[in-house]
Amino acid sequence: MPNLWDNAMVSAQTNLLDPNIWPLSATRTDAGEIAIAGVPVSELVAQYGSPLFVLDEADVRARAKAYHAAFNDSEVVTEVFYAGKAFMAGKVIKWIVDEGLNVDVCTAGELEVALRAGVAPERILFHGNNKSVSELERAVEVGVGRIVLDSFIEIERLANIASARGVTVQVLIRLTVGVEAHTHEFISTAHEDQKFGLSIASGAALEAARMVIESDSLSLLGLHSHIGSQIFDAQGFEIAAQRVFDTAVSIREDLDFTVSELNLGGGMGIAYLGEDDPLRVEQMAKALHEIVLKECERVQFPVPRLLVEPGRAIIGPAGITVYEVGTTKDVDVTDDLARRYVSVDGGMSDNIRTALYGAEYTVALASRNSSAELIDSRVVGKHCESGDIVIRDVRMFSDIGPGDLLAVAATGAYCRAMASNYNHMVRPAVVSVVDGKSELVLRRETIEDLLALDAGVN
Amino acid sequence: MPNLWDNAMVSAQTNLLDPNIWPLSATRTDAGEIAIAGVPVSELVAQYGSPLFVLDEADVRARAKAYHAAFNDSEVVTEVFYAGKAFMAGKVIKWIVDEGLNVDVCTAGELEVALRAGVAPERILFHGNNKSVSELERAVEVGVGRIVLDSFIEIERLANIASARGVTVQVLIRLTVGVEAHTHEFISTAHEDQKFGLSIASGAALEAARMVIESDSLSLLGLHSHIGSQIFDAQGFEIAAQRVFDTAVSIREDLDFTVSELNLGGGMGIAYLGEDDPLRVEQMAKALHEIVLKECERVQFPVPRLLVEPGRAIIGPAGITVYEVGTTKDVDVTDDLARRYVSVDGGMSDNIRTALYGAEYTVALASRNSSAELIDSRVVGKHCESGDIVIRDVRMFSDIGPGDLLAVAATGAYCRAMASNYNHMVRPAVVSVVDGKSELVLRRETIEDLLALDAGVN
Repeated sequence: MPNLWDNAMVSAQTNLLDPNIWPLSATRTDAGEIAIAGVPVSELVAQYGSPLFVLDEADVRARAKAYHAAFNDSEVVTEVFYAGKAFMAGKVIKWIVDEGLNVDVCTAGELEVALRAGVAPERILFHGNNKSVSELERAVEVGVGRIVLDSFIEIERLANIASARGVTVQVLIRLTVGVEAHTHEFISTAHEDQKFGLSIASGAALEAARMVIESDSLSLLGLHSHIGSQIFDAQGFEIAAQRVFDTAVSIREDLDFTVSELNLGGGMGIAYLGEDDPLRVEQMAKALHEIVLKECERVQFPVPRLLVEPGRAIIGPAGITVYEVGTTKDVDVTDDLARRYVSVDGGMSDNIRTALYGAEYTVALASRNSSAELIDSRVVGKHCESGDIVIRDVRMFSDIGPGDLLAVAATGAYCRAMASNYNHMVRPAVVSVVDGKSELVLRRETIEDLLALDAGVN
Repeated sequence: MPNLWDNAMVSAQTNLLDPNIWPLSATRTDAGEIAIAGVPVSELVAQYGSPLFVLDEADVRARAKAYHAAFNDSEVVTEVFYAGKAFMAGKVIKWIVDEGLNVDVCTAGELEVALRAGVAPERILFHGNNKSVSELERAVEVGVGRIVLDSFIEIERLANIASARGVTVQVLIRLTVGVEAHTHEFISTAHEDQKFGLSIASGAALEAARMVIESDSLSLLGLHSHIGSQIFDAQGFEIAAQRVFDTAVSIREDLDFTVSELNLGGGMGIAYLGEDDPLRVEQMAKALHEIVLKECERVQFPVPRLLVEPGRAIIGPAGITVYEVGTTKDVDVTDDLARRYVSVDGGMSDNIRTALYGAEYTVALASRNSSAELIDSRVVGKHCESGDIVIRDVRMFSDIGPGDLLAVAATGAYCRAMASNYNHMVRPAVVSVVDGKSELVLRRETIEDLLALDAGVN
């Protein structure tokens, strides 16, 4: 017997919407249609087109508010930065900042969105392994609150830029802590084979701290660590924090400098499937605060300001993608196994995560209820590529056909953000819904938008 | 000892450019810089910005011409369709059509580019597993030469659209032949677990042919098969052709109809690395013609018109990506193994293939020669994601540093075509160079282009 909350089984079997997966205000109307904040998806598609990303504004705000509240319920003073790379748009940034969060950006483009959304520069943190000179100049010019330094080259580069302007820039140093966390597992090594950060083990981190402390134009606030994504519990953070505190102690002992901030990064996971069970924000905040206090006790360190950087955890569950079914096809996989291919009007251009990471999602028939039998199905896109799969394996109603709307849950993060125009498909609109009213967050592209770049068409 | 033509070893060791990998007109200037058609890459970057896609127009034209010539050197009348999904831009389409090829599109967007580039509609073939009603209506309205039907639903849909307009549409039926080919290997099964086509084994293909033949508004030209990508030899095509001819025989015997066209699809491979050895176009054309003639003999069938659909093979080798190095970092992977991370100003937003398919590329120091020692290196992008890797493992000169330009070969196909704005990075320009002169093919995006979609910024 499948678990009641098994992958897509709930929505498929009962038309119910698992509240751990779907947006807070997602409901079924009396007519059986999925509605967000009271607006049926068919109305949204009629107004804005299909495919369509729909954001539940109240959900985004509630998650941002919950992060702010949970991480401020401690003697460990904490600032929460929304990791804009998950999804960056002016209105979303306004909601999130409104609820008390700051913003983490990693390119000139993301910085520009934050600034034009009205975020105070001191509430912005700038990340990245290869920030360009012009990006650093822009960050210094507008006065972002923190820049996370990621290499020796960058330390020198930023020091020169700040010095030339006669300003002092507040920075953190990104450490490679040798911890990689994912869901319920983490690996811990002495080294870390990745592009981010300065190695603790090799002494690079300490040397970077020395360079920053000796610079007249850089002010060292603290240390940064980021251990992975889709993290469901706090164990990986605990090991990382130990190494970060050990580094802080080395800096205190060797360089006679006490850092005042500790950024443990992001990666807090969300539920894509019924069986996913990430820590609730209150649990995660409590765990991280306890880890910090325990470490301060262990190494006799003054309690630093804590920073965290959730992205997906704020925006992911609040968004869904609505697609229209175009064709269906039954395929004999073997002599004994059949599969229904359900083709929708989007695909790997609006959600590359299935193809790129083997990501799994929950899908529901959105435009109506059904009581038809369930059959082995695969939801695919319309791109000219056989790997263009939205959901690899799902039991779906056998009466699903052209014109039906499907909704894929938890697509608020890393879907529109990573969207392409593969096959000259236009990227869908993103709309927000609150209190029965919808509005545009990002408008749908048009073919004219694409052709505007093309020097060879009229 | 590494093979002389091993992955990137040539360019790394000797600064030479393997002609099997680099564009036809790629050379080193006396100063040691890579030039395309006589224009040094530093000049191109100064004019158009970095990163930059550079297309060798003469190379694209030569490959298109070679395809046309090789496939017309036979009693088997053959038409070559450029698979636009590899890279679609007005100027490129004009060159390719100018050299005698037709165009294969699979969305309304690709169709629009072809039409605005001046391609005669009858030279356009329309593909896709889930063409929308509006796409089919547009295709019928403009009079595309061939539509490849991919499902029962689509047959009925297109028949209705054509009937309503009082026209007859020429179609092919896409078969799932149960062959999947890749490089030197292919697998052959009775069934095929994918979204494209109508199964021969289940009888769906024959039923589809019956529906088309019985329709007043559809005219059956022939059958289509596509077996994979990066195919280096003709074995997979031979098995596929046998099954297609067997289907043609079934249609003749059961439905008293003789198809006149056979489309064997695309997937012809190119060299990304020194050891890659795809069949030359003359060899591939000869092999496919022999296969067709042998099959006609075997089943006593009149020689059909042959269609093929190369995409990557036309545009892939003609394009390179030029990046500027921003930072470098040395990482101890283990106590005994070190790696140099070389960060460039692009990444997974302009080339998702490394992350998505594990694709491998050849890279060269482009702005100068070097005689420095070679060290284990990894070329990474500037996105806030550890999987943002351009080239996973390569031996590169140890003196490469900020400001150096790198060129990645054979990025003409499926790079700009699949590009995203992840992290609000703007997509690079594509320029073409011929006879010492450069011009824009696609202009570089600006942050304003991105913000123009955003309803929440000023």
